[in-house]
Amino acid sequence: MKKEFEFIDYLRNQITNKPANLIAGIGDDAAIFITPNNYQNLISTDLLIEDTHFKLKYTPADLLGYKALAVNLSDIAAMGGEAKYFLLSIARPKTLSDEFLTDLLLGMFELAKKYKVSLIGGDTSASSDKLFLNLTVLGESLVNKAVMRSGAEPGDEIYVSGKLGGAALGLELLQKGKRLTDNNLTKIEKSALLAHLKPEPKLDLGSQLVKSQLVTAMIDISDGLSSDLGHICKESQVGAIIDSALLPLFDGATMDQALNGGEDYELLFTVPAEKVGQVKELAMLFPNLSITKIGVITSNLTKFLITQNGQIPLKPCGYDHFG
Amino acid sequence: MKKEFEFIDYLRNQITNKPANLIAGIGDDAAIFITPNNYQNLISTDLLIEDTHFKLKYTPADLLGYKALAVNLSDIAAMGGEAKYFLLSIARPKTLSDEFLTDLLLGMFELAKKYKVSLIGGDTSASSDKLFLNLTVLGESLVNKAVMRSGAEPGDEIYVSGKLGGAALGLELLQKGKRLTDNNLTKIEKSALLAHLKPEPKLDLGSQLVKSQLVTAMIDISDGLSSDLGHICKESQVGAIIDSALLPLFDGATMDQALNGGEDYELLFTVPAEKVGQVKELAMLFPNLSITKIGVITSNLTKFLITQNGQIPLKPCGYDHFG
Repeated sequence: MKKEFEFIDYLRNQITNKPANLIAGIGDDAAIFITPNNYQNLISTDLLIEDTHFKLKYTPADLLGYKALAVNLSDIAAMGGEAKYFLLSIARPKTLSDEFLTDLLLGMFELAKKYKVSLIGGDTSASSDKLFLNLTVLGESLVNKAVMRSGAEPGDEIYVSGKLGGAALGLELLQKGKRLTDNNLTKIEKSALLAHLKPEPKLDLGSQLVKSQLVTAMIDISDGLSSDLGHICKESQVGAIIDSALLPLFDGATMDQALNGGEDYELLFTVPAEKVGQVKELAMLFPNLSITKIGVITSNLTKFLITQNGQIPLKPCGYDHFG
Repeated sequence: MKKEFEFIDYLRNQITNKPANLIAGIGDDAAIFITPNNYQNLISTDLLIEDTHFKLKYTPADLLGYKALAVNLSDIAAMGGEAKYFLLSIARPKTLSDEFLTDLLLGMFELAKKYKVSLIGGDTSASSDKLFLNLTVLGESLVNKAVMRSGAEPGDEIYVSGKLGGAALGLELLQKGKRLTDNNLTKIEKSALLAHLKPEPKLDLGSQLVKSQLVTAMIDISDGLSSDLGHICKESQVGAIIDSALLPLFDGATMDQALNGGEDYELLFTVPAEKVGQVKELAMLFPNLSITKIGVITSNLTKFLITQNGQIPLKPCGYDHFG
């Protein structure tokens, strides 16, 4: 097994280009970076824990690395920011091979390269049992331009990117024994497995939405639409009505998976009614990503779902992380 | 057991004063903060894992919270920076009570208040087995003023703050069954237990050393003097000679504990020979903290320890985190 210092040297050697505003990355007590004039810093952190967030038996190492960074980058996307740096803490069980760890890092660096995000620090430890990953990601946005959860106003229309429920469907398939390496997967099954195992952070969409000044509130769908819409409503002190007929269901996913499944890492955002036309224009920049109106923000603090059978209360049924 | 959202609300309610440059803390996808003109950002992250870094059977909850933040703040101290913000990830086993978690946070906030460091984000998760804590701490220093490990020059004198080996001695006592709550502890035993359980980050000393422009390289002693001096030597491309007779041993600690024990969280730093007089002046600002010359930086890349029996090679025997 690689020693810690060999591992850190390995990580340092993976980093070829030093960003202009990074003064010092891995290798000191702290990393040092400069924030350009007129920019503000964004920071977020996310845990990924074996047997809570993933199981090793169905998670390819490279995709685990990819996803660990993706879910963190998704938080920067949800602010409309540009991702810049990340820190990685790994607690490694003795049973985990060097090969698994290397593949995990390869997957992580594949995504880091795609969005020009640099690893600038971290920590490593032995773990007596489970594999733990904690990533912290730093981003930037122009001062006063980051989109928070708290800006939604009654009358704003509610939009979501992509399809919903794919990650939950993928998880269900994994739990039923389906694997990405199976030869007889249908196209739908493969898409759903990838939706769960390899989510894509919507950094470009988030950044475009902010540049166009179209959105009043935004969040990424990590806990589930019902819970994440609830966060926007709570922070904005508003309610919402969602039309179930408008929800962009992932092929094969159920309404419950779309509403409560979570981990889709799509963007959920609110747009003032007078700017709705501009959303359609912006959507043309993303031909491979649907952008769908699903409801409207209300001044009544309750949240409803309109179905064929009338309105039913929309409870936050998403993931409780301590549950 | 508290639900995650109750827990996050609890944390938000602990935070009374919002720092001037913090735009948004807990409660959105990412925290937002501004870096003042002429300042640069420092960032560091540290894991604390049950049964790797601590055992619940001998660690009071409030001191665990205190230490988890202290070891992170110590990294900012080692750069000579000012600590500003932190993020906290907790993976919580179902067996861990709300009371333990609350006490842990009380201890953490006690230290945060002392150094005016604000909690601005984090993540929470269930853990199937062990308690995992990951903290990320952010600091600031004037542009180009942070002290790195790489600036030591041959002829620089090597200094260390405080006493060495106390944390290792404290750990040994804990492993032998001694507890802080024992009625019959000697004064030395109590000090050693506290050295292990409640280390103090040397933020004020680090910051004063930088303001006085006295130091060429600095690190905090987390892995052990032998390893941490090795980091300075490696990054600075120099060697070192340490005089065992000069080492400030913690009362009751052995030479091995002082050299290799780690977790003392004292500052180890190098000073050009012509500035040594100024160190003595600066030391007078810290009447409760010894500042001791222990050796000299050399151009020969090997590291030696001078003992009664002559010179012996000083190998890095400190902690290997993957070991």
